[in-house]
Formats: sequence, C-alpha cells, structure tokens
Amino acid sequence: MSMPINYLKAVSWKDVKIKSGFWGDRVRINRNVVLDYQYEQIEKAGCVDNFRRTSGKKGGKFEGFFFNDSDVYKWVEAASYSLGTHSDKKLEEKVNRLIEDIADAQEEDGYLNTYFTLEKKEHFSDLPVKHELYCAGHLIEAAVAHYLATGKTNLLDVATRFVDLICYTFGPGKKQSAPGHEEIELALVKLYHLRREKRYLDTARFFIEKRGKGYAGGDEYRQDHLPFTEQKEIIGHAVRAVYLMSGAADVCRETKDKALMVTLNRLWENMVQKKMYATGGIGSRYEGEAFGKNYELPNDRAYAETCAAIGNIFWNHRMLHLTGDAKYADIMEKVLYNGFLSGISLDGRKYFYQNPLQADKDHRRASWFPCACCPPNVARLLSSLGGYFYSVSGEGVWIHLYGESETAITLDKDRKVTLNQHTNYPWSGEISIKVSSEKETSFTLFLRIPGWCQEAEVLVNGKSMAGDITPSSYLPISRTWEGEDEVQLNIPIPVEFLQTRPHSSNNARLAISRGPMIYCIEAEDHPGIDVFDILLSPDTELTPHFESGLLGEVVVLKGEASVQDLSSWQGKLYRPYRKEEKVKKEPLEITAIPYFAWANRSPGKMLVWVLER
Amino acid sequence: MSMPINYLKAVSWKDVKIKSGFWGDRVRINRNVVLDYQYEQIEKAGCVDNFRRTSGKKGGKFEGFFFNDSDVYKWVEAASYSLGTHSDKKLEEKVNRLIEDIADAQEEDGYLNTYFTLEKKEHFSDLPVKHELYCAGHLIEAAVAHYLATGKTNLLDVATRFVDLICYTFGPGKKQSAPGHEEIELALVKLYHLRREKRYLDTARFFIEKRGKGYAGGDEYRQDHLPFTEQKEIIGHAVRAVYLMSGAADVCRETKDKALMVTLNRLWENMVQKKMYATGGIGSRYEGEAFGKNYELPNDRAYAETCAAIGNIFWNHRMLHLTGDAKYADIMEKVLYNGFLSGISLDGRKYFYQNPLQADKDHRRASWFPCACCPPNVARLLSSLGGYFYSVSGEGVWIHLYGESETAITLDKDRKVTLNQHTNYPWSGEISIKVSSEKETSFTLFLRIPGWCQEAEVLVNGKSMAGDITPSSYLPISRTWEGEDEVQLNIPIPVEFLQTRPHSSNNARLAISRGPMIYCIEAEDHPGIDVFDILLSPDTELTPHFESGLLGEVVVLKGEASVQDLSSWQGKLYRPYRKEEKVKKEPLEITAIPYFAWANRSPGKMLVWVLER
Repeated sequence: MSMPINYLKAVSWKDVKIKSGFWGDRVRINRNVVLDYQYEQIEKAGCVDNFRRTSGKKGGKFEGFFFNDSDVYKWVEAASYSLGTHSDKKLEEKVNRLIEDIADAQEEDGYLNTYFTLEKKEHFSDLPVKHELYCAGHLIEAAVAHYLATGKTNLLDVATRFVDLICYTFGPGKKQSAPGHEEIELALVKLYHLRREKRYLDTARFFIEKRGKGYAGGDEYRQDHLPFTEQKEIIGHAVRAVYLMSGAADVCRETKDKALMVTLNRLWENMVQKKMYATGGIGSRYEGEAFGKNYELPNDRAYAETCAAIGNIFWNHRMLHLTGDAKYADIMEKVLYNGFLSGISLDGRKYFYQNPLQADKDHRRASWFPCACCPPNVARLLSSLGGYFYSVSGEGVWIHLYGESETAITLDKDRKVTLNQHTNYPWSGEISIKVSSEKETSFTLFLRIPGWCQEAEVLVNGKSMAGDITPSSYLPISRTWEGEDEVQLNIPIPVEFLQTRPHSSNNARLAISRGPMIYCIEAEDHPGIDVFDILLSPDTELTPHFESGLLGEVVVLKGEASVQDLSSWQGKLYRPYRKEEKVKKEPLEITAIPYFAWANRSPGKMLVWVLER
Repeated sequence: MSMPINYLKAVSWKDVKIKSGFWGDRVRINRNVVLDYQYEQIEKAGCVDNFRRTSGKKGGKFEGFFFNDSDVYKWVEAASYSLGTHSDKKLEEKVNRLIEDIADAQEEDGYLNTYFTLEKKEHFSDLPVKHELYCAGHLIEAAVAHYLATGKTNLLDVATRFVDLICYTFGPGKKQSAPGHEEIELALVKLYHLRREKRYLDTARFFIEKRGKGYAGGDEYRQDHLPFTEQKEIIGHAVRAVYLMSGAADVCRETKDKALMVTLNRLWENMVQKKMYATGGIGSRYEGEAFGKNYELPNDRAYAETCAAIGNIFWNHRMLHLTGDAKYADIMEKVLYNGFLSGISLDGRKYFYQNPLQADKDHRRASWFPCACCPPNVARLLSSLGGYFYSVSGEGVWIHLYGESETAITLDKDRKVTLNQHTNYPWSGEISIKVSSEKETSFTLFLRIPGWCQEAEVLVNGKSMAGDITPSSYLPISRTWEGEDEVQLNIPIPVEFLQTRPHSSNNARLAISRGPMIYCIEAEDHPGIDVFDILLSPDTELTPHFESGLLGEVVVLKGEASVQDLSSWQGKLYRPYRKEEKVKKEPLEITAIPYFAWANRSPGKMLVWVLER
C-alpha cells in the first residue's frame, strides 16, 4: 500500500495560469461562454428564484428538484474560481447578487435550504432521501472558493453559520446521521483547512463513521450497506461513491487513520481493475446510476455520468496527494481527457449526462437537464483546473499535468520559483519547462512519466540526462536551480491498440489510444459504412494527422481497416457455428477521432471498441 | 408475409392429458405442489385479504402493490385449468371460497378492484399508471378458465358484470383510453369467444386502436409512443409489449385486419432478429423492465423476466394459429424449454423474476416477491400446457409439441380421433404417435419439424415414408386412417455450438444447444475452476449423457475444453494489445447442463456464452 499519508500539497488554482494550448482553449471557453450560458440556465430553471421566493422577494412555489440549490452553489463556485484568476466586473456583480439572494434565504438559526423552507418541511427529517447535507456541502465549497478568490467573507459567513448549525445538530450524543448523498464530508474538510475549527473535521469524520448503520437507508445504493472500513467493493450510485471516497481521503489526510487508507486503496483497486471504462468513466448501470458488478461494463448502456467522472478526478487527485504515487495521476489524466471532457460540447453549450462508449444517432448532448448536476460541475472543474497541475512537497515541485501554463510557487518563505510550461501536449510530447528562481536554490523537480510512456528524453539546459524511464512514476531532477533553467521533456506519444481483460463485453475487440487520449470511430467520417461493422486488425498502422480545422483542433488517426460482410447473417441473430471470415470492403480508410470530441457533428453511430479482425 | 389469417384452432388444454415424460413431471409438480404453495403465498401476502377487506369481512387497509388482485386471479386461472383435467375436491373448495371473496368485493355497478375501492380512489382516474384494466383482464381470463373447467358461471358472472361496465364506460364517443398495462385486450377476446358479444371484441379493438395517442402516457415504456400500426420496433416494458401483441393477434384473427398482421410480423421479426436472447428470453434492461435497442443483449444484466417469456409464448402461439407457420412454433418451443422454464425451481417452490444468461452466486430464485406477477403466471401456463400441443384445421391435425400425451380430437361432428404420443423428447428424438379413429377417415397429420432439425425419419405403420425434411416446417402425412395407426418420427437431436451475430456482446463466444435446449456451464460441476475462464473450441466434441439422478433427470453434455491463464492480466483491466494464448489447464473435462435447470444446486457462477478459444 502507498504511504506516507499527507505527502503532497497542491499548488492552488489561484496560482496557476493556463494560458493557451489544449486546456487553455477549454478554460477560455469556460470563462467566456460557459459561465454566462449556465447562469442563464439556472435562472430559467427557477433555481435562483427559489432563493428569492424563500426570502419573500418573489412569490410562487418551489420549482424543480428538491436539490436544485446545489446547481446555484456549483455555479457560484465555478464563477469564483474564474474571478480568482481573471477579474471580470460583470461576473462579479452576478456573483454578488446571487450571494445576496442566497444570504437572504437563510433562516435565523443558520439553516439554509430553499426546498425545505418553502415547502415547510421539518429540517433534517429525511436525510437518506432529501439532500439537505449535500446542498450544504456545495454551499461550503462555493463559499470557500469565493473567499479564496475574492477575500470577501459574505458567502463564507452564510456557509459557516449553516455549518455551525449542522455541527451543533449532528455528532456523538446528538443527532445520528449519514447523509443519503455524500458531499458534505469533503466540503467540511475544505472549510476546516480555512478555519481550523476542529469540529468541522470531526463532523466530517463522524458522517463517514456513521455509514453502514442504516442512517442513510442501509442500502448499497447509498454506500450504507456496511461500515465504510468494511466495504469490500465500490458499489452503488457512482457519484455518491466517489464523493464519499474523496471525503474519506480528506479525513484520512488529516487524521492519518490507517484503516481509512487501507479501505481507500482496496476500493480504488476494485474500481480501476474491475469497474472502470477505458475512458475513465464509472457507473455502468442506468438503474441507480450505479457501479455494476466486477467486469460489468456494457459499451452502449454505459452510464458513466459526467459528475461521476468529476468525482473520480477528485478522488484520484486526493490519493495522489496522500501518496505521491503516479498511478493516481494516470487515472486523473485519463478521466480528464476522456470521460470527463466528453461531458461538454466543443462550444460549451451542450452537455452529456451519460457518456457511453458506443451509441447510435440518438445519443446527443442536451442544452440543459431537469436534473442539471453535470453542467455546473463541469464548469467548476474547468475553472479550477490549474489546481490539478502542480504540487509541492518537502523535496520540491511536482508536475502532474502537461500543458501551456505558468505558476509561481513558494517553496518556503525565502524561496520562490516560477514554472513556465510550453507544449502542445497531448497532441505532441515535447514539453519545455522554464524554471526561474530569484536566488540559487536546491530542490527536486518531479516530472510525471505517464503509465503509457515507455521511453522519454530529458534535457536540462540542453544537456541530456541519463537514466531509465519508469512508466507511471515521477522522474526526479535534483539540482541547484538558479536564474533561468530549462528542462525539456520529450515523450513519444504512442498510438496503441488496447484490449480488455477477458470476461468483459469487449471480448475480441480493440480500442485505439494515443497517449492519454482514447479514440473513437464516428459515422461522420465513414459515409456509406455502418461503423459497427468495421474490422480492425492489430497489425493496422494508424498514423496521426494534426487537423487544425477539425473539431476545434485535434489529432486524428488514419489507417486501413476493413468492413465485414454480414449478408450470411441476414435475418439471423443466432446460428450454428461456422468458421468464416467474409470481408465486404477492403481496404477501408478509417479515421479515428478523440473520444471527447464525438457528437459534435451530425448525429450518427459511434464506437470505441472495434471488432478485432 | 404469412397468410391466411385464422388458420389453426388449438385443441383445448381440457382435451389434452400430459401424463408423464419431461412435461408430465413438471405438470404434476405444478398440480401437486405449486398450486397449494402459491395459494399459501397469496394468502400470506394479503392479496386475498384485500378482497375480504373490501367486502367488510375483514378489517384493515389495502396491502401490497396496487395491482395485487391480479395475483389472485392468475392463481384462480391456474387452479381452474388443473380442475379441468384433474378433479381435486380440496382445490375446488379453495377456488370456490376465493370466488366468493372476489364476488363479495364487487361494487354495485360491477366495478371490481380492491385497491381502488379500499383506498377510495376515483375509478378509471389514472389509467396510464394504475392497473385497473390489467387486473380486469386477469379476472376475465380466470373466469373463462373457471367456466370452461367447471361449467360454473359464478366467476364468469362477476367478470361479465365488470366487463359490461368497462364496455359501457370506454369506446367511441365515450371515455377514451389505452390501458397503461396491456392485458385486457386479449382477455376481452377470450370472453368474446365464449359469449359472442360483439362489444367485447369491439372494446378490445378500441383499446388497441387508441394506443399512440397519449392516453397511456404517450411513452415508449407503455407502447404509447406511436399508433400500434405505425410502430417500427418492439419497444418498452417487455411484458406489456408481448401482451399487447397477443391481444392484437387475437383481434386480427377475428377482424382479419391486414394492417394488424403486417405490424405483428414487423414487430415479431424485429424481436426475433434483434432483441431476443438465445433462451427466448426478452427484455434486456433492468430500467423499465424493457426491450433494449437492437442487439443490446447483455448476458449478466439480462432482465428476461419470466412473465415476458410467458407473454412471448402467448404471442407465438397466436401467430402460429394465424398462419400455420412453423417459425412461430420454433420460438414457442425455445422459450418453453429455456427462458420460461428457468423461471421455476425443480421443486416448484422458488422462482426467478430475471433470467440472466450469466450470473454469479448471488442470483438465486426467491420463495416469493413483493411484486409476485411471475409465479402464478408460471403456474397458469403449466396447468394449461396441454393447450399448446395440438391444433386442428380444415386439413387435419397438427402436432406442435412432442411429449408423452393423449388427446381426443373432434375433426367434425362425425369424426373423432385419438392421438397418443409416446416419447422421451427432448432427451431423445424418437416419437411414437398412435392415431386411433373409430371409423375410416381421411385427414392430414402435420408433424412439426423443428428449425434445428436437418434430417428425420418417418414411418407409418412401420413403413418408411420417402420425402425431404424441411427444417422449421410441418411435415404432412395425408392418408386414410382407420382403427389404430402408428406414426413414428425419429429426429436426431443434434448438439450444436451457436454463435451470435457480430455487434452483440457475445462476440467470439459460443453457446451450446441440443435440440430445443440451451445449455449452460455451472460452477457446481467444475470445482476449482472459474467457469468464466473456460475456453471452448468449436471443434470440441460434446457427448450426451442421460443422468437419471441429476437435476430431476436430464441429459448433460460432456467434453474437453480448456481454461485460460489470466496471470498476465493480474491487476489489469485494459492493456496494449498483445497476441497470446495462454492456457492454464488442458484438457478440462466440462459438463454442460440444460439452462432451465441452473441454480438448483449450491450457489455459484453460471454462463451460457462461453469464450471461444
């Protein structure tokens, strides 16, 4: 098991500028399009009006789902991150008005939930089903983000008053509970980091320790079937599960509780080895939006909710920081480029709730959802994405993600260092990192070597560094840095065919990857062909082509495959076995596009796992 | 398309004795164990008490699901069929008491639904969701069965009064509706056959014609997305879908409506060619207990509800009688021996709701269900099974199912003929049919040649008949019969490996069949082996062994396979492609058992589709 606990400290999103390149483009669209677009949507959906109705500014009944407050909080959180790196008067005004609406809806005792207040429901009366503590968690996250971004305490005060009520209400000798939808646990630890009030951490720990005792319904759906540290498999509603894991990792970091760490590792291994899609998506069942059994990973009916992908990133980010183990960064990166990023259209105005690995023309992104948890979740991740790039430890600086970015890091009070990354990663593997330090200083720079990377070249100030490359590790460069140094990391980005462990539904199928990117085949590029009929040989050579005008700007892969002839199957679903290989069309020039970019053109079939010839 | 409409007339269950053999054993357990056992269960569940509460014989509130009346009706129907072929005083008394309880719960105007009456809900106020007309349909079916079995009209009068209210309420110019759960359509035609009141048929037709206009919710789940004759794919809740198809086939038979026939054929082809399991199970989704998209047929998450299998039998039986086309008999037989029969344990006291094609040790039959639609549905099919064996047409007598049985058939008022089948089918393919006619009479005996049968030998009174055997057809034997004639049909029962059309999740997997029987591999027979790791070569020779002490009495198949070595997959779910075939154990003696018999020993893994080596 990976130890020690509490190893890395992430460099704040506030201190990282993502300027251009792959993520820069997305962060810019998020800032310039998504935030405004989503604000309109939450207004239209009545989520903001619910606050106004609660304070009496507006008439009418509660509108939408009982947890809709959380959409507003997630939007405020997303907007706050953005304000922390890019000032924007108009956005700030919107945020301030919203915070006023939120604050005015708070009850005397600090309670805040527009559904319960408007509908005159007894507070904390249905914790397994209604999401009061879930919404409270998102309020806390928004408040912490807003305070860190702006230094203002107006939302933080609101959140703190509510948290104080929650801590007063729940705990040993008080009301017993485990929330039906986890989220408040990780949020309480965030607030604890800011305020250092031990009761916040204690309450987070309390909620985790109360699981498996029937307070949250007693079922697998809510991870309440067993006490947390006795859980053997990751199970139930996928978003809840990974939010719980994230909260438990946060508590583990503070308490050094080894039983939590053992459990987190066990459940992580179960997920990664048996319950995760090649895209990093999780949750294979529509029913219960849940994890399936081991190896239950249907392509077409993959649920793989965008929110679950985001929670998966949260969890892996935390595990990485607990341990410094690159295997968590591998998953984090895989999810970011694939199962997370597919959740939003290239123009930022359409969203997937489910992210299947095979689909027909009917599966398309929507402008919004009645249950709109995913879109503002995407927005808050994109506007805080800088926080996932760099970390520090006693030994030095760690780089987890490659992409055009700049960060100013304080190693300790006397030592500041600036990092400047220039790269077209992941399309190209040439990464230049300029390290600037005012004075001479010794520390180790840890460069992440992805799991798919078997070889790499490292140059420091133009001089090649000797040494082996270990996939899925951090390559340490220990030296004395002074003035401007340049580290060049050249990673060949390999095109590979992936296969799945037998037992799965991808038996004798191949997926295509290039570095961190999973590719797919879309109908648009293959007119006149049913893409489900394509046969791919593992010997096929696929060559990368950078297409600046396609799908934003992507590297597509082109090569020769074939199309199978199904005429002997006419009208048949089953038949006695006969050995035959019939090819209708050969060669067929195929084009694979990055998975995240699918469904951005005309509707048509898509598949990730192609039949092996 | 198969025409003409209204071709065959089934010989009534009342006129067929299933004495012994494969089905005889099951029918006997049904009569001696299942009926009593299920009666206890519906009493325990409070379904009968709901009637007593409604009439004031008993206090208390309505218990269970709002459609629980139907469990009582289905049980009465099952018991009635049994009384029609085997008198049983005790059973008769139970039935009579139940009918009294039912009759006493009927309202003045004929209305009868204990949920609506006890809960004081407005009648017919929520047709898309609440199952008043569904329950009414089961009341009608029970009443018709009871009348035919006993000649008594006590239940028939109750049903007729309710039906008269329904026909008075619904129809052109009256209340418009399409029931949320189809069932009443086929039931109304049954009553029409008995009473010849045209309004019964008209109302059945009315309900079918009203689909797709939003009366039943407007959704695919309830087949209300499009008018019936415009539906392109079989879709939504599988039980509802096949009950609708059965009702539409019944209406089609009476009205000769060609548009109905065209639709029925289209939807049947869609089901059989794209949406049906190799076991004949249908409905591949847990969510909505529904048909999936074309080729969406997961093995582990197959829903394949037992009730849907039964509805599939109903529908195919009707299509067969509309057309005389053996392809419907093929499906009927496939479902009977596999996806239907797996629904009940060998001892008759445990039931599957879902019938997956792959499972781990947790999927076991239950003693009963809160929603117990399946068990009494199994009982009524088994106690009326004789009705699926024989038919008559203007040309003669048709044999659809082979099994130890006897029937007395009236060809017309002057011509009676008795058929006596002796066979150990499906374990063996030797079938002897004794045809006895009092006087010399000419007619054709149609022997069903199953779709999997490529060759057969036919002897009439010991003399071999020349002629080709056509799979999936009826072999006509036209002659003048007199006194005792004997027809001998010898069908070799082939062991075959089946494959699924590519696109499906069974890519590069093989299933094993022997005649109509689908086989599976169960952990119990393979100690120390993970049966999911078994590799089966299409060249493997599997030999049948009749095991009189095993699983009742079955033919198992034995042969040599191998087990794959997954050590190179340790800890991995995905990896770059490499060509390798690692075999851990070879040869491995495997034993395949009939699918229907699985989960009758100690819990363990089971699979139908084995990895192809």
